[in-house]
Order: sequence, then C-alpha cells, then structure tokens
Amino acid sequence: MDILDIKEDIIEENRREAHVIRNLLEGSETYLVNLMASPGAGKTSTILKLAEAWGDNVSLAVVEGDIDSMVDSHKMKAAGLPAVQITTGGACHLDVPMVKPALELLDLSALDAVIVENIGNLVCPAEFDIGADLSAMILSVPEGDDKILKYPLMFSVCDVLIVNKIDFLALPSNNFDLDRLQGRFARINPHAPIFPISTYSGEGLPELAHWIANEIRAAYPSKKSR
Amino acid sequence: MDILDIKEDIIEENRREAHVIRNLLEGSETYLVNLMASPGAGKTSTILKLAEAWGDNVSLAVVEGDIDSMVDSHKMKAAGLPAVQITTGGACHLDVPMVKPALELLDLSALDAVIVENIGNLVCPAEFDIGADLSAMILSVPEGDDKILKYPLMFSVCDVLIVNKIDFLALPSNNFDLDRLQGRFARINPHAPIFPISTYSGEGLPELAHWIANEIRAAYPSKKSR
Repeated sequence: MDILDIKEDIIEENRREAHVIRNLLEGSETYLVNLMASPGAGKTSTILKLAEAWGDNVSLAVVEGDIDSMVDSHKMKAAGLPAVQITTGGACHLDVPMVKPALELLDLSALDAVIVENIGNLVCPAEFDIGADLSAMILSVPEGDDKILKYPLMFSVCDVLIVNKIDFLALPSNNFDLDRLQGRFARINPHAPIFPISTYSGEGLPELAHWIANEIRAAYPSKKSR
Repeated sequence: MDILDIKEDIIEENRREAHVIRNLLEGSETYLVNLMASPGAGKTSTILKLAEAWGDNVSLAVVEGDIDSMVDSHKMKAAGLPAVQITTGGACHLDVPMVKPALELLDLSALDAVIVENIGNLVCPAEFDIGADLSAMILSVPEGDDKILKYPLMFSVCDVLIVNKIDFLALPSNNFDLDRLQGRFARINPHAPIFPISTYSGEGLPELAHWIANEIRAAYPSKKSR
C-alpha cells in the first residue's frame, strides 16, 4: 500500500468536490480566501489586522482549522468576527467535506468574504482545493528565505505571498534576504505579488488590506451588502 | 473514502515495520535520533551545532528528509558529515520504507549515532515510528508558546523538547513565555526534558550536546568505535 497513490486519489476526489463550494460561494457572492502557512507564521494575527484595516468596508467571517483546539476561533470572536471552528482530529489539512459544512453555518449572503485559516503546514494544505477564490500563503522571516526550495508546491500554488515579521530583518542575527526570496519566488510563481508585512509594527498591512479588498470587489462588484 | 481511516492503517503497518530498523540499529549498536520541527525552526543548524560540540567524541551521520531539494545534505557534507538525502516527492513525513534504505547506505558499525532530519511539519511526522531511540522536537520562539495546544501529538510523543532561537526572547516584540510553555508541556509530557538553546548565540547547546551524548552512551555503553 503506497500512501502517495492513495493520497493522489483522495486529492483528485477532493478537487472534483470543490465545485460544490464554488457554487455555494457564487450563489451568495462571497469571496473565499484560503490562508496557509507554517505553524506560528502569523496567520491569526494577519487575519485580525486585516479585519481591523477593513473595518465596516469588508464584511468578514473566519473559518478556523485546527487539529485540536479552539484557541483561534475564540480570538476571532473576541475581536467581534463571526467564526466557525473546524477541529480535524489529526488531519494535517482542510478539505471540502470539512469546509463546506463550516461555510453553511455562516450567513454567507451577508458576508463579503470568508478567510479560512488552514492547518499550520507547508505541505498537505497545498494539495487540497477547497474552492477558494484566493490561495494566500504566509512565510515568516524567521523561517528563512530557502523555504521555497523545500516546499515548492505551496509556493507555486499560492496567488499571493505574504512575508510576515519583516521587523526581524533588522536583527543582527538576520540572514533572510528579501531580494533573494523575490528572485526565487519569481522563478516558480512569476505572477503572484509579494507583500512584506509586520503584524507587530503594522508595516505593509494597509497595502495588503487594500489589495485583497480590491480582489474581493473585482470578483463581486455588485454585491448587495456593500 | 476517509483519509483518516486509510492513514490509520498505514500508520499501523509502518509501526509493525519499524522493528526492522530497530534490529538493524541494535546489530550495529547505532543510536537513532528522529529530529522533528516546523519549517525553519532550526533543525539543520541544531544538527551542525551538535556535530561541532561533539567533535570526535560522537561519530555522527545524518539522513536528510526533504520533499524536493538537496540543500541540507549539501550543508552537512560541507561540514564533513556523512549524509544521505531522502527526497519524498511530495510526502509530508518520513516512514520506514524511506528511512531503512537510507540507513543501509551508511557504514552503521562505524557510527555512534545517526540523526534523521524529518520533513518540516508538526503534524504527520509525529504519527510515523521510524524506529528511533530518541524522538526530539524543536519549537522555535517566533512560532509562539501556544503551539502545544494546536499540535498536541507532536509534543506528547517527543522524548525531548528543544526550544530554539531563545535570543528572540529579548526582543521588544516578544510575547513567548518560557514558563508558560514549560507549564503546558509538563501537563502533556511530564518526563521529557526541555533544552532552551540558540543556534545563533550558542547558548544552551553544550547542555543539549552533553545530554544527548549521555543518552547515546547509555544505550550502547560498550560500542567499539569509541
């Protein structure tokens, strides 16, 4: 029994099912972001900062994927965001059968966008289509600028690369080179923009928030909730 | 088709096969360390620093697991360490069928220890027994002290927790609390020691190197290569 072959079948089946989520979203004109990253890269903080930047301009809800905790959905609710928690009970990624019922718990027609915070993992989430309009990934500076070489699929499937914790670039111990990262990224994913941000200092967040808000508006220009 | 059920079968099959690796290691009196962590937590740097601290006292080789690159095994060879590269071609963890042939490429009888650098992932590697004497995990300070809540299996299966990048604790942006981490860890894994280190400043590395060397000697006190 080869886990790669079995996984390939499951990935393919999942891909076929993703259209169910796309139909659901198109029906309610709701934009879906699949946010992926390593553990601790700053997914939760980025979502909270985006929500703060958007305020009432983007009606947002969050689906939180976690293996075994409710920590992040509690943080979202504390910030006033509608949040649904998925606990995967061990699974290393989210898939359509997990995301669809979570979306159905939300009042999609009243929402401009839903951000799904995927499991912290640079491998498996990249393989599972969850019907998102935007696949966003965060790489954090402390992880190093060589991660593209090691986790190429994630960097090649994402539509936007967010580089978080850029305040760490100024440390004496830093050996992360943003230019080197950009060069490597351009070779495997030439069309996706890169947004350097710091959820600590706030740097770069207005630009990122503005860009995603434009993507949301471009997808559903006549959405009634706005 | 439920990926969790299939995965459980594969994990169980792998567990049964792990004894083949244990027999191989016991025959040659070689100690095996399974080193696991998130991407960019400092697995490669920690191995290089341990090798430096041990010098000729521990005869070491490295098995490098990567999805799709040879970066780390090149670093190991540049440091004078025998290294075998496993490229998993997409798989998110190492398993017995990958590790066994890699070990067979090494002259095990001449080695005190082999460190396997697993795929950067806090989920899947925790589930796969590769016959190691010591399961070691690294958590890096920038990832946050709440990762135990989110990836409990990894923190509960490890025999030692290495907390890397403790030089970051002094930053104004730091909100990682080592005491809080220790409290959380003690609740799910009361017997495993914690070693705070910095591969940048070198702090804590002598203590970690000393402790692992003692574990190696305790497992095979009469190994002829020493």
